[in-house]
Amino acid sequence: MTTSDDLAARVARLEDLEAIKQLKYRYWRCLDTKQWDEMTECFTPDASAAYGEGRYTFAGRDAIMQFLRDAMGVQSGTWGHHHGHHPEIELTGPTTARGVWALHNYLLNPRAQRGVRMACYYRDEYVKTGGVWRIKHTGYTYLYNEEWSRADMPSLRVLAPVDGR
Amino acid sequence: MTTSDDLAARVARLEDLEAIKQLKYRYWRCLDTKQWDEMTECFTPDASAAYGEGRYTFAGRDAIMQFLRDAMGVQSGTWGHHHGHHPEIELTGPTTARGVWALHNYLLNPRAQRGVRMACYYRDEYVKTGGVWRIKHTGYTYLYNEEWSRADMPSLRVLAPVDGR
Amino acid sequence: MTTSDDLAARVARLEDLEAIKQLKYRYWRCLDTKQWDEMTECFTPDASAAYGEGRYTFAGRDAIMQFLRDAMGVQSGTWGHHHGHHPEIELTGPTTARGVWALHNYLLNPRAQRGVRMACYYRDEYVKTGGVWRIKHTGYTYLYNEEWSRADMPSLRVLAPVDGR
Repeated sequence: MTTSDDLAARVARLEDLEAIKQLKYRYWRCLDTKQWDEMTECFTPDASAAYGEGRYTFAGRDAIMQFLRDAMGVQSGTWGHHHGHHPEIELTGPTTARGVWALHNYLLNPRAQRGVRMACYYRDEYVKTGGVWRIKHTGYTYLYNEEWSRADMPSLRVLAPVDGR
Repeated sequence: MTTSDDLAARVARLEDLEAIKQLKYRYWRCLDTKQWDEMTECFTPDASAAYGEGRYTFAGRDAIMQFLRDAMGVQSGTWGHHHGHHPEIELTGPTTARGVWALHNYLLNPRAQRGVRMACYYRDEYVKTGGVWRIKHTGYTYLYNEEWSRADMPSLRVLAPVDGR
Repeated sequence: MTTSDDLAARVARLEDLEAIKQLKYRYWRCLDTKQWDEMTECFTPDASAAYGEGRYTFAGRDAIMQFLRDAMGVQSGTWGHHHGHHPEIELTGPTTARGVWALHNYLLNPRAQRGVRMACYYRDEYVKTGGVWRIKHTGYTYLYNEEWSRADMPSLRVLAPVDGR
Protein backbone atom coordinates (compact mmCIF):
# COMPACT_ATOMS: atom_id res chain seq x y z
CA MET A 1 0.00 0.00 0.00
CA THR A 2 1.21 3.51 -0.80
CA THR A 3 0.63 6.06 1.96
CA SER A 4 0.02 9.67 1.17
CA ASP A 5 3.29 10.64 2.89
CA ASP A 6 5.33 8.26 0.73
CA LEU A 7 3.72 9.69 -2.37
CA ALA A 8 4.28 13.26 -1.23
CA ALA A 9 7.99 12.58 -0.86
CA ARG A 10 8.18 11.06 -4.35
CA VAL A 11 6.33 14.02 -5.85
CA ALA A 12 8.65 16.43 -4.02
CA ARG A 13 11.63 14.60 -5.52
CA LEU A 14 10.27 15.07 -9.04
CA GLU A 15 9.57 18.74 -8.32
CA ASP A 16 13.12 19.21 -7.03
CA LEU A 17 14.58 17.64 -10.20
CA GLU A 18 12.48 19.99 -12.35
CA ALA A 19 13.46 23.01 -10.24
CA ILE A 20 17.18 22.19 -10.52
CA LYS A 21 16.89 21.77 -14.30
CA GLN A 22 15.13 25.14 -14.58
CA LEU A 23 17.85 26.72 -12.40
CA LYS A 24 20.55 25.53 -14.76
CA TYR A 25 18.53 26.55 -17.84
CA ARG A 26 18.17 30.06 -16.37
CA TYR A 27 21.95 30.10 -15.74
CA TRP A 28 22.71 29.36 -19.41
CA ARG A 29 20.01 31.72 -20.71
CA CYS A 30 21.40 34.57 -18.61
CA LEU A 31 24.95 33.77 -19.75
CA ASP A 32 24.13 33.86 -23.48
CA THR A 33 21.76 36.86 -23.24
CA LYS A 34 24.28 38.63 -20.94
CA GLN A 35 21.76 39.18 -18.11
CA TRP A 36 24.32 39.42 -15.33
CA ASP A 37 22.05 40.62 -12.50
CA GLU A 38 19.56 37.79 -12.98
CA MET A 39 22.45 35.33 -13.36
CA THR A 40 23.98 36.34 -10.00
CA GLU A 41 20.88 34.96 -8.26
CA CYS A 42 21.61 31.47 -9.65
CA PHE A 43 24.60 31.11 -7.29
CA THR A 44 24.94 30.86 -3.51
CA PRO A 45 27.09 33.71 -2.11
CA ASP A 46 29.88 31.22 -1.33
CA ALA A 47 29.70 29.41 -4.69
CA SER A 48 32.85 28.10 -6.34
CA ALA A 49 33.65 27.40 -9.98
CA ALA A 50 36.30 25.39 -11.82
CA TYR A 51 35.77 26.07 -15.52
CA GLY A 52 38.08 24.64 -18.17
CA GLU A 53 39.31 21.65 -16.15
CA GLY A 54 40.22 23.97 -13.27
CA ARG A 55 42.15 26.47 -15.40
CA TYR A 56 39.60 29.15 -14.43
CA THR A 57 38.94 28.66 -10.71
CA PHE A 58 36.99 31.13 -8.57
CA ALA A 59 35.86 31.28 -4.92
CA GLY A 60 32.69 33.25 -4.24
CA ARG A 61 29.82 34.40 -6.42
CA ASP A 62 31.36 37.84 -6.97
CA ALA A 63 34.58 36.43 -8.41
CA ILE A 64 32.66 34.05 -10.69
CA MET A 65 30.44 36.85 -11.97
CA GLN A 66 33.42 39.15 -12.59
CA PHE A 67 35.07 36.45 -14.72
CA LEU A 68 31.87 35.83 -16.73
CA ARG A 69 31.23 39.55 -17.34
CA ASP A 70 34.82 39.99 -18.55
CA ALA A 71 34.78 36.90 -20.78
CA MET A 72 31.28 37.21 -22.24
CA GLY A 73 30.15 40.84 -21.69
CA VAL A 74 29.14 43.00 -24.65
CA GLN A 75 32.56 44.69 -24.58
CA SER A 76 34.24 41.30 -25.27
CA GLY A 77 32.77 41.14 -28.77
CA THR A 78 32.02 37.44 -28.14
CA TRP A 79 28.61 35.90 -28.86
CA GLY A 80 27.43 32.35 -28.98
CA HIS A 81 25.55 29.58 -27.27
CA HIS A 82 26.16 27.44 -24.20
CA HIS A 83 23.62 24.63 -24.52
CA GLY A 84 23.25 22.15 -21.67
CA HIS A 85 22.10 18.58 -22.18
CA HIS A 86 21.75 15.18 -20.53
CA PRO A 87 20.85 16.10 -16.93
CA GLU A 88 21.74 13.30 -14.49
CA ILE A 89 20.55 14.97 -11.27
CA GLU A 90 20.76 13.12 -7.96
CA LEU A 91 19.28 14.36 -4.67
CA THR A 92 21.81 13.69 -1.91
CA GLY A 93 19.70 15.03 0.99
CA PRO A 94 16.58 17.13 1.66
CA THR A 95 18.36 20.33 0.55
CA THR A 96 21.40 19.09 -1.39
CA ALA A 97 21.90 17.63 -4.85
CA ARG A 98 24.55 16.99 -7.45
CA GLY A 99 24.27 16.98 -11.20
CA VAL A 100 26.13 15.91 -14.32
CA TRP A 101 25.43 17.85 -17.53
CA ALA A 102 26.76 17.82 -21.09
CA LEU A 103 27.66 21.19 -22.64
CA HIS A 104 27.81 22.21 -26.30
CA ASN A 105 29.50 25.58 -26.65
CA TYR A 106 29.93 27.55 -29.88
CA LEU A 107 31.40 31.06 -29.82
CA LEU A 108 32.02 33.70 -32.47
CA ASN A 109 33.99 36.91 -32.13
CA PRO A 110 33.64 38.59 -35.53
CA ARG A 111 35.88 41.52 -34.52
CA ALA A 112 38.74 39.19 -33.54
CA GLN A 113 37.87 36.72 -36.34
CA ARG A 114 37.83 33.97 -33.71
CA GLY A 115 35.72 30.82 -33.66
CA VAL A 116 35.46 28.29 -30.79
CA ARG A 117 33.68 24.96 -30.48
CA MET A 118 33.79 22.69 -27.47
CA ALA A 119 31.88 19.95 -25.69
CA CYS A 120 32.27 19.36 -21.96
CA TYR A 121 30.86 17.56 -18.95
CA TYR A 122 29.86 19.57 -15.90
CA ARG A 123 29.85 18.24 -12.32
CA ASP A 124 27.73 20.58 -10.18
CA GLU A 125 26.52 20.80 -6.60
CA TYR A 126 23.26 22.47 -5.62
CA VAL A 127 21.70 23.58 -2.33
CA LYS A 128 18.17 24.64 -1.43
CA THR A 129 17.70 27.55 0.95
CA GLY A 130 14.36 29.26 1.62
CA GLY A 131 12.74 26.92 -0.89
CA VAL A 132 15.06 28.03 -3.74
CA TRP A 133 17.71 25.85 -5.41
CA ARG A 134 21.04 27.53 -6.20
CA ILE A 135 24.41 26.47 -7.64
CA LYS A 136 27.01 25.87 -4.91
CA HIS A 137 29.72 24.51 -7.19
CA THR A 138 30.14 24.19 -10.92
CA GLY A 139 32.97 23.02 -13.14
CA TYR A 140 33.65 21.06 -16.29
CA THR A 141 36.14 18.93 -18.15
CA TYR A 142 36.51 18.80 -21.94
CA LEU A 143 35.44 16.21 -24.46
CA TYR A 144 37.12 18.41 -27.07
CA ASN A 145 37.99 22.07 -27.54
CA GLU A 146 38.97 23.61 -30.86
CA GLU A 147 39.58 27.11 -32.20
CA TRP A 148 40.04 28.64 -35.64
CA SER A 149 40.29 31.89 -37.51
CA ARG A 150 37.03 32.85 -39.20
CA ALA A 151 39.21 34.18 -42.05
CA ASP A 152 39.44 30.53 -43.23
CA MET A 153 35.84 30.95 -44.48
CA PRO A 154 35.88 34.21 -46.47
CA SER A 155 32.13 34.11 -47.23
CA LEU A 156 31.04 34.10 -43.54
CA ARG A 157 28.45 36.79 -42.84
CA VAL A 158 27.05 37.67 -39.39
CA LEU A 159 23.38 38.67 -39.71
CA ALA A 160 22.77 38.94 -35.96
CA PRO A 161 23.52 40.46 -33.59
CA VAL A 162 23.77 43.66 -35.60
CA ASP A 163 26.33 45.20 -33.25
CA GLY A 164 28.39 42.03 -33.45
CA ARG A 165 29.40 42.61 -37.07
CA MET B 1 -0.25 17.36 6.29
CA THR B 2 -0.60 16.75 2.58
CA THR B 3 -4.12 16.00 1.38
CA SER B 4 -4.73 13.81 -1.63
CA ASP B 5 -6.20 16.78 -3.51
CA ASP B 6 -3.08 18.88 -3.00
CA LEU B 7 -0.94 16.05 -4.26
CA ALA B 8 -3.17 15.45 -7.26
CA ALA B 9 -2.76 19.08 -8.31
CA ARG B 10 1.03 18.85 -7.99
CA VAL B 11 1.13 15.66 -10.04
CA ALA B 12 -1.11 17.26 -12.68
CA ARG B 13 1.35 20.17 -12.89
CA LEU B 14 4.26 17.80 -13.53
CA GLU B 15 2.20 15.95 -16.15
CA ASP B 16 1.34 19.25 -17.87
CA LEU B 17 5.01 20.25 -18.00
CA GLU B 18 5.90 16.89 -19.57
CA ALA B 19 3.03 17.17 -22.08
CA ILE B 20 4.09 20.68 -23.15
CA LYS B 21 7.68 19.52 -23.61
CA GLN B 22 6.52 16.57 -25.75
CA LEU B 23 4.32 18.97 -27.79
CA LYS B 24 7.30 21.15 -28.63
CA TYR B 25 9.51 18.12 -29.33
CA ARG B 26 6.87 16.84 -31.78
CA TYR B 27 6.80 20.31 -33.40
CA TRP B 28 10.56 20.23 -34.05
CA ARG B 29 10.56 16.59 -35.14
CA CYS B 30 7.80 17.28 -37.68
CA LEU B 31 9.64 20.38 -38.92
CA ASP B 32 12.95 18.59 -39.57
CA THR B 33 11.35 15.41 -40.96
CA LYS B 34 8.96 17.55 -43.06
CA GLN B 35 5.78 15.93 -41.64
CA TRP B 36 3.47 18.86 -42.33
CA ASP B 37 0.13 17.19 -41.57
CA GLU B 38 1.22 15.96 -38.14
CA MET B 39 2.83 19.36 -37.47
CA THR B 40 -0.43 21.24 -38.18
CA GLU B 41 -1.98 19.55 -35.13
CA CYS B 42 0.63 21.17 -32.86
CA PHE B 43 -1.01 24.59 -33.34
CA THR B 44 -4.38 26.04 -32.32
CA PRO B 45 -6.37 27.22 -35.38
CA ASP B 46 -5.84 30.86 -34.35
CA ALA B 47 -2.12 30.46 -33.57
CA SER B 48 0.30 33.28 -34.32
CA ALA B 49 4.05 33.22 -35.02
CA ALA B 50 6.82 35.83 -35.00
CA TYR B 51 9.93 34.06 -36.27
CA GLY B 52 13.21 35.92 -36.80
CA GLU B 53 12.54 38.72 -34.29
CA GLY B 54 9.21 39.43 -35.96
CA ARG B 55 10.57 39.55 -39.52
CA TYR B 56 8.38 36.53 -40.38
CA THR B 57 5.02 37.17 -38.71
CA PHE B 58 1.89 35.09 -39.37
CA ALA B 59 -1.69 35.06 -38.06
CA GLY B 60 -3.47 31.71 -38.11
CA ARG B 61 -2.25 28.14 -38.33
CA ASP B 62 -2.72 27.98 -42.10
CA ALA B 63 -0.46 30.96 -42.74
CA ILE B 64 2.23 29.56 -40.41
CA MET B 65 2.11 26.14 -42.10
CA GLN B 66 2.30 27.71 -45.59
CA PHE B 67 5.45 29.60 -44.58
CA LEU B 68 7.08 26.49 -43.09
CA ARG B 69 6.25 24.31 -46.12
CA ASP B 70 7.73 26.94 -48.45
CA ALA B 71 10.85 27.49 -46.38
CA MET B 72 11.61 23.89 -45.39
CA GLY B 73 9.69 21.65 -47.83
CA VAL B 74 11.54 19.09 -49.94
CA GLN B 75 11.34 21.46 -52.94
CA SER B 76 13.40 24.05 -50.99
CA GLY B 77 16.48 21.85 -51.07
CA THR B 78 17.10 22.80 -47.42
CA TRP B 79 17.85 20.21 -44.73
CA GLY B 80 19.02 20.52 -41.20
CA HIS B 81 18.15 20.44 -37.54
CA HIS B 82 16.14 22.66 -35.22
CA HIS B 83 17.08 21.45 -31.74
CA GLY B 84 15.25 22.91 -28.75
CA HIS B 85 16.82 23.13 -25.30
CA HIS B 86 16.45 24.61 -21.82
CA PRO B 87 12.65 24.47 -21.29
CA GLU B 88 11.50 27.03 -18.70
CA ILE B 89 7.78 26.24 -18.74
CA GLU B 90 5.39 28.07 -16.42
CA LEU B 91 1.71 27.21 -15.98
CA THR B 92 -0.27 30.46 -15.87
CA GLY B 93 -3.73 28.90 -15.31
CA PRO B 94 -5.48 25.52 -15.48
CA THR B 95 -5.34 25.53 -19.30
CA THR B 96 -2.69 28.14 -20.14
CA ALA B 97 1.09 28.17 -20.00
CA ARG B 98 4.08 30.03 -21.33
CA GLY B 99 7.52 28.74 -22.16
CA VAL B 100 11.04 29.92 -22.89
CA TRP B 101 13.24 27.66 -25.03
CA ALA B 102 16.71 27.82 -26.53
CA LEU B 103 17.10 26.86 -30.20
CA HIS B 104 20.15 25.56 -32.06
CA ASN B 105 19.52 25.64 -35.80
CA TYR B 106 21.91 24.35 -38.50
CA LEU B 107 20.82 24.29 -42.15
CA LEU B 108 22.42 23.05 -45.34
CA ASN B 109 21.26 23.63 -48.88
CA PRO B 110 23.78 21.71 -51.02
CA ARG B 111 22.14 22.82 -54.30
CA ALA B 112 22.41 26.52 -53.39
CA GLN B 113 25.77 25.92 -51.59
CA ARG B 114 24.28 27.70 -48.56
CA GLY B 115 25.05 27.09 -44.89
CA VAL B 116 23.25 28.66 -41.91
CA ARG B 117 23.88 28.48 -38.17
CA MET B 118 21.88 30.30 -35.53
CA ALA B 119 20.94 30.20 -31.86
CA CYS B 120 17.75 31.81 -30.60
CA TYR B 121 15.41 32.13 -27.65
CA TYR B 122 11.74 31.32 -28.12
CA ARG B 123 8.89 32.83 -26.07
CA ASP B 124 5.80 30.66 -26.54
CA GLU B 125 2.23 30.51 -25.27
CA TYR B 126 0.29 27.26 -24.94
CA VAL B 127 -3.37 26.39 -24.33
CA LYS B 128 -5.05 23.12 -23.37
CA THR B 129 -8.35 22.23 -25.04
CA GLY B 130 -10.02 18.83 -24.80
CA GLY B 131 -7.10 17.59 -22.70
CA VAL B 132 -4.54 18.41 -25.41
CA TRP B 133 -1.85 21.14 -25.22
CA ARG B 134 -1.26 23.17 -28.38
CA ILE B 135 0.91 26.14 -29.39
CA LYS B 136 -1.05 29.42 -29.39
CA HIS B 137 1.91 31.69 -30.05
CA THR B 138 5.55 31.14 -30.92
CA GLY B 139 8.38 33.48 -31.77
CA TYR B 140 12.10 33.94 -31.23
CA THR B 141 14.92 36.46 -31.04
CA TYR B 142 18.51 35.75 -32.07
CA LEU B 143 21.59 35.13 -30.01
CA TYR B 144 23.47 35.02 -33.32
CA ASN B 145 22.76 34.23 -36.96
CA GLU B 146 25.44 33.54 -39.57
CA GLU B 147 25.52 32.35 -43.16
CA TRP B 148 28.23 31.18 -45.53
CA SER B 149 28.86 29.60 -48.89
CA ARG B 150 29.64 25.91 -48.64
CA ALA B 151 32.12 26.50 -51.49
CA ASP B 152 34.51 27.80 -48.80
CA MET B 153 35.02 24.15 -47.83
CA PRO B 154 35.72 22.34 -51.11
CA SER B 155 35.94 18.89 -49.49
CA LEU B 156 32.39 18.96 -48.05
CA ARG B 157 30.44 15.82 -48.95
CA VAL B 158 26.76 15.21 -48.21
CA LEU B 159 26.18 11.51 -47.44
CA ALA B 160 22.53 11.93 -46.45
CA PRO B 161 19.91 12.64 -47.48
CA VAL B 162 20.69 11.05 -50.82
CA ASP B 163 18.32 13.37 -52.71
CA GLY B 164 19.90 16.36 -51.01
CA ARG B 165 23.17 16.01 -52.89
CA MET C 1 -12.21 11.94 -6.80
CA THR C 2 -8.60 10.88 -7.04
CA THR C 3 -7.68 7.77 -5.06
CA SER C 4 -4.23 7.25 -3.68
CA ASP C 5 -3.71 4.26 -5.98
CA ASP C 6 -4.53 6.29 -9.09
CA LEU C 7 -2.07 8.93 -8.00
CA ALA C 8 0.62 6.37 -7.21
CA ALA C 9 0.37 5.03 -10.76
CA ARG C 10 0.67 8.52 -12.24
CA VAL C 11 3.71 9.27 -10.08
CA ALA C 12 5.29 5.96 -11.08
CA ARG C 13 4.80 6.91 -14.74
CA LEU C 14 6.64 10.22 -14.24
CA GLU C 15 9.42 8.40 -12.37
CA ASP C 16 9.74 5.88 -15.20
CA LEU C 17 10.02 8.67 -17.80
CA GLU C 18 12.77 10.32 -15.74
CA ALA C 19 14.60 6.99 -15.28
CA ILE C 20 14.51 6.26 -19.03
CA LYS C 21 15.85 9.73 -19.83
CA GLN C 22 18.68 9.26 -17.33
CA LEU C 23 19.44 5.84 -18.87
CA LYS C 24 19.86 7.36 -22.31
CA TYR C 25 21.89 10.30 -20.93
CA ARG C 26 24.23 7.79 -19.25
CA TYR C 27 24.51 5.92 -22.57
CA TRP C 28 25.66 9.06 -24.41
CA ARG C 29 27.95 10.20 -21.58
CA CYS C 30 29.67 6.80 -21.54
CA LEU C 31 29.98 6.85 -25.34
CA ASP C 32 31.67 10.27 -25.51
CA THR C 33 33.85 9.72 -22.43
CA LYS C 34 34.72 6.20 -23.66
CA GLN C 35 33.53 4.46 -20.47
CA TRP C 36 32.82 1.09 -22.07
CA ASP C 37 32.27 -0.98 -18.91
CA GLU C 38 29.65 1.42 -17.52
CA MET C 39 28.07 1.68 -20.96
CA THR C 40 27.62 -2.10 -21.24
CA GLU C 41 25.18 -1.95 -18.31
CA CYS C 42 22.86 0.34 -20.33
CA PHE C 43 21.89 -2.60 -22.59
CA THR C 44 19.98 -5.82 -22.02
CA PRO C 45 22.11 -8.88 -22.87
CA ASP C 46 19.96 -9.55 -25.96
CA ALA C 47 19.88 -5.91 -27.13
CA SER C 48 19.94 -5.10 -30.84
CA ALA C 49 21.10 -2.01 -32.71
CA ALA C 50 20.56 -0.59 -36.18
CA TYR C 51 22.79 2.48 -36.45
CA GLY C 52 23.07 4.50 -39.66
CA GLU C 53 19.67 3.49 -41.10
CA GLY C 54 20.51 -0.17 -40.59
CA ARG C 55 23.97 -0.03 -42.21
CA TYR C 56 25.51 -1.00 -38.86
CA THR C 57 23.27 -3.73 -37.44
CA PHE C 58 24.19 -5.84 -34.40
CA ALA C 59 22.50 -8.60 -32.39
CA GLY C 60 23.46 -8.85 -28.73
CA ARG C 61 25.08 -6.46 -26.32
CA ASP C 62 28.57 -7.86 -26.91
CA ALA C 63 28.43 -7.21 -30.66
CA ILE C 64 27.14 -3.66 -30.12
CA MET C 65 29.87 -2.89 -27.60
CA GLN C 66 32.59 -4.29 -29.87
CA PHE C 67 31.42 -2.01 -32.69
CA LEU C 68 31.36 1.05 -30.41
CA ARG C 69 34.81 0.33 -28.95
CA ASP C 70 36.24 -0.04 -32.45
CA ALA C 71 34.56 3.07 -33.85
CA MET C 72 35.03 5.41 -30.87
CA GLY C 73 37.79 3.91 -28.69
CA VAL C 74 40.92 5.94 -27.91
CA GLN C 75 42.83 4.01 -30.59
CA SER C 76 40.41 5.34 -33.25
CA GLY C 77 41.67 8.90 -32.83
CA THR C 78 38.04 10.07 -33.00
CA TRP C 79 36.55 12.48 -30.46
CA GLY C 80 33.32 14.39 -30.37
CA HIS C 81 29.86 14.66 -28.97
CA HIS C 82 26.65 12.67 -29.34
CA HIS C 83 23.98 14.93 -27.86
CA GLY C 84 20.45 13.60 -27.50
CA HIS C 85 17.40 15.84 -27.55
CA HIS C 86 13.60 15.92 -27.73
CA PRO C 87 12.63 12.79 -25.75
CA GLU C 88 9.18 11.50 -26.72
CA ILE C 89 8.99 8.52 -24.35
CA GLU C 90 5.88 6.37 -24.21
CA LEU C 91 5.25 3.60 -21.67
CA THR C 92 3.75 0.63 -23.50
CA GLY C 93 3.29 -1.62 -20.43
CA PRO C 94 4.40 -1.90 -16.80
CA THR C 95 7.96 -2.84 -17.84
CA THR C 96 8.19 -1.77 -21.48
CA ALA C 97 8.55 1.57 -23.23
CA ARG C 98 9.55 3.08 -26.53
CA GLY C 99 11.23 6.38 -27.23
CA VAL C 100 11.98 8.80 -30.04
CA TRP C 101 15.07 11.02 -29.67
CA ALA C 102 16.86 13.59 -31.79
CA LEU C 103 20.66 13.28 -32.10
CA HIS C 104 23.25 15.92 -32.87
CA ASN C 105 26.60 14.31 -33.59
CA TYR C 106 29.88 16.15 -34.25
CA LEU C 107 33.13 14.21 -34.64
CA LEU C 108 36.75 15.21 -35.13
CA ASN C 109 39.68 12.99 -35.98
CA PRO C 110 42.67 15.35 -36.06
CA ARG C 111 45.09 12.55 -37.07
CA ALA C 112 42.98 11.62 -40.12
CA GLN C 113 41.99 15.28 -40.70
CA ARG C 114 38.36 14.12 -40.76
CA GLY C 115 35.27 16.05 -39.67
CA VAL C 116 31.71 14.69 -39.41
CA ARG C 117 28.40 16.35 -38.61
CA MET C 118 25.03 14.63 -38.57
CA ALA C 119 21.56 14.88 -37.13
CA CYS C 120 19.38 11.79 -36.70
CA TYR C 121 16.21 10.44 -35.14
CA TYR C 122 16.44 7.40 -32.87
CA ARG C 123 13.63 4.90 -32.32
CA ASP C 124 14.38 2.90 -29.18
CA GLU C 125 12.78 0.19 -27.06
CA TYR C 126 13.35 -0.16 -23.34
CA VAL C 127 12.60 -2.84 -20.75
CA LYS C 128 12.62 -2.77 -16.95
CA THR C 129 14.02 -5.77 -15.10
CA GLY C 130 14.75 -5.84 -11.38
CA GLY C 131 13.63 -2.22 -11.14
CA VAL C 132 16.22 -1.05 -13.71
CA TRP C 133 15.45 0.29 -17.21
CA ARG C 134 17.75 -0.86 -20.01
CA ILE C 135 17.94 -0.42 -23.80
CA LYS C 136 16.53 -3.39 -25.69
CA HIS C 137 16.76 -1.88 -29.16
CA THR C 138 18.25 1.27 -30.58
CA GLY C 139 18.63 2.62 -34.09
CA TYR C 140 18.45 5.83 -36.06
CA THR C 141 17.77 7.37 -39.46
CA TYR C 142 19.46 10.52 -40.77
CA LEU C 143 18.20 14.04 -41.14
CA TYR C 144 21.56 14.81 -42.76
CA ASN C 145 25.10 13.46 -42.66
CA GLU C 146 28.14 15.35 -43.98
CA GLU C 147 31.89 14.89 -43.91
CA TRP C 148 34.87 17.07 -44.78
CA SER C 149 38.62 17.30 -44.57
CA ARG C 150 39.79 19.50 -41.73
CA ALA C 151 42.56 20.64 -44.10
CA ASP C 152 39.95 23.00 -45.62
CA MET C 153 40.39 25.16 -42.49
CA PRO C 154 44.17 25.55 -42.12
CA SER C 155 43.91 27.54 -38.87
CA LEU C 156 42.05 24.81 -36.92
CA ARG C 157 43.74 24.07 -33.59
CA VAL C 158 42.75 21.28 -31.19
CA LEU C 159 43.28 22.45 -27.58
CA ALA C 160 41.67 19.36 -25.99
CA PRO C 161 42.02 16.49 -25.65
CA VAL C 162 45.79 16.86 -25.50
CA ASP C 163 46.41 13.36 -26.87
CA GLY C 164 43.99 14.07 -29.72
CA ARG C 165 46.26 16.63 -31.41
